Amino acid sequence: MKLYNYFRSGTSFRVRIALNLKGLNYEYLPVHLARGEQHGAAYRAISPDGLVPVLDVAGNPDEALLSQSMAIIEYLDETHPEPPLLPADALGRARVRALAQTVACEIHPINNLRILKYLGGPLGLSEAQRAEWYNHWVREGLLAYERRLRDLQAERAARGLPPSVYSYGDTPTLADCCLVPQVVNGRRFGLDYADLDIPLTLAAFDACMRLDAFQRAMPDRCPDAER
Amino acid sequence: MKLYNYFRSGTSFRVRIALNLKGLNYEYLPVHLARGEQHGAAYRAISPDGLVPVLDVAGNPDEALLSQSMAIIEYLDETHPEPPLLPADALGRARVRALAQTVACEIHPINNLRILKYLGGPLGLSEAQRAEWYNHWVREGLLAYERRLRDLQAERAARGLPPSVYSYGDTPTLADCCLVPQVVNGRRFGLDYADLDIPLTLAAFDACMRLDAFQRAMPDRCPDAER
Repeated sequence: MKLYNYFRSGTSFRVRIALNLKGLNYEYLPVHLARGEQHGAAYRAISPDGLVPVLDVAGNPDEALLSQSMAIIEYLDETHPEPPLLPADALGRARVRALAQTVACEIHPINNLRILKYLGGPLGLSEAQRAEWYNHWVREGLLAYERRLRDLQAERAARGLPPSVYSYGDTPTLADCCLVPQVVNGRRFGLDYADLDIPLTLAAFDACMRLDAFQRAMPDRCPDAER
Repeated sequence: MKLYNYFRSGTSFRVRIALNLKGLNYEYLPVHLARGEQHGAAYRAISPDGLVPVLDVAGNPDEALLSQSMAIIEYLDETHPEPPLLPADALGRARVRALAQTVACEIHPINNLRILKYLGGPLGLSEAQRAEWYNHWVREGLLAYERRLRDLQAERAARGLPPSVYSYGDTPTLADCCLVPQVVNGRRFGLDYADLDIPLTLAAFDACMRLDAFQRAMPDRCPDAER
């Protein structure tokens, strides 16, 4: 498999984690977003909307270029079932998908590079205003994530189960693939998690970061990393 | 089932369509977003993040409050398989999910009510600037959707298949549940589709609008509709 991606892209990071958790080798093909490589003709032939990540799954088992990180991860989970990234029951899957979408639909889209560029360009916002925008939505989103985890832990406690190790249960899921890049990205933008009351979220994050699959997917471990 | 939702909420609209396509009856419980009912204590007990829609699936087959529209629709599809809202093959599911996420992760989150409120409030943007913001991201997103449909139609043609009737294939899918509310919402904001080159997207939209399941989910058909 080949992964068209960018070291700092949070959505690329999600797919790198999933590939590592599945133990799948892949060829890393960098697309330099900050330099605008995604808008060039060469990359537009791969991704008509100029977005990363794109996974070329030639022979695994289909011949196809796949886009949208959550769709890619579900595809990997269906075609390479072990270890599973979604629970076996419909309710569990609904919970994990809702957690993933709390990051992927409520936080990330509002704060990615193209949005920040538009705020700075056509709308002429200052760097301080953009930082405030970024922090506002990440804080709101992670507080929402925390409330979900709290509800889920209460459900587990009511059933006599111990607290989850990761976002949902005792193994990493699609939710963790989305959470970890968001937390890492927030740190890069200077967000201070110490004054944000999200203990369950940070505990799940820390548990993930103890796994090699997450560590190897980190932006600073990527071949195109810049310091 | 009970659906906590709002007539103008695009994500609520998606779930109403899915429930109708599945032939499932539900109790419509309005949450008036424009008046801020989602922030009240009563609704916060239902949805800790104050978002609609929330589906109470008591007894179908779980006892649970579900959130995040795409996660809800996948749950409905798994627990009430007929008619399917996702294709039977992994590649088809990846395609449909990517289409749905093109709307749900690239267009809707940037343009929903809370974002437009923040642009007008803390950032002090004028109504004209907000309209330009809205139109910019909807146009970009629908053009991306169109490019995906074009690629998919080319794949079908290469396999000797006729063009898709809906976004993907001959029956409505999760992708159409997301597309239709976005197109309707754009119209409400005055977006002129006549000067946007998205013929395949509008053909899929028109096909959906010929179905009663989509018509009955329209905002102006909701019990809380305002004119």
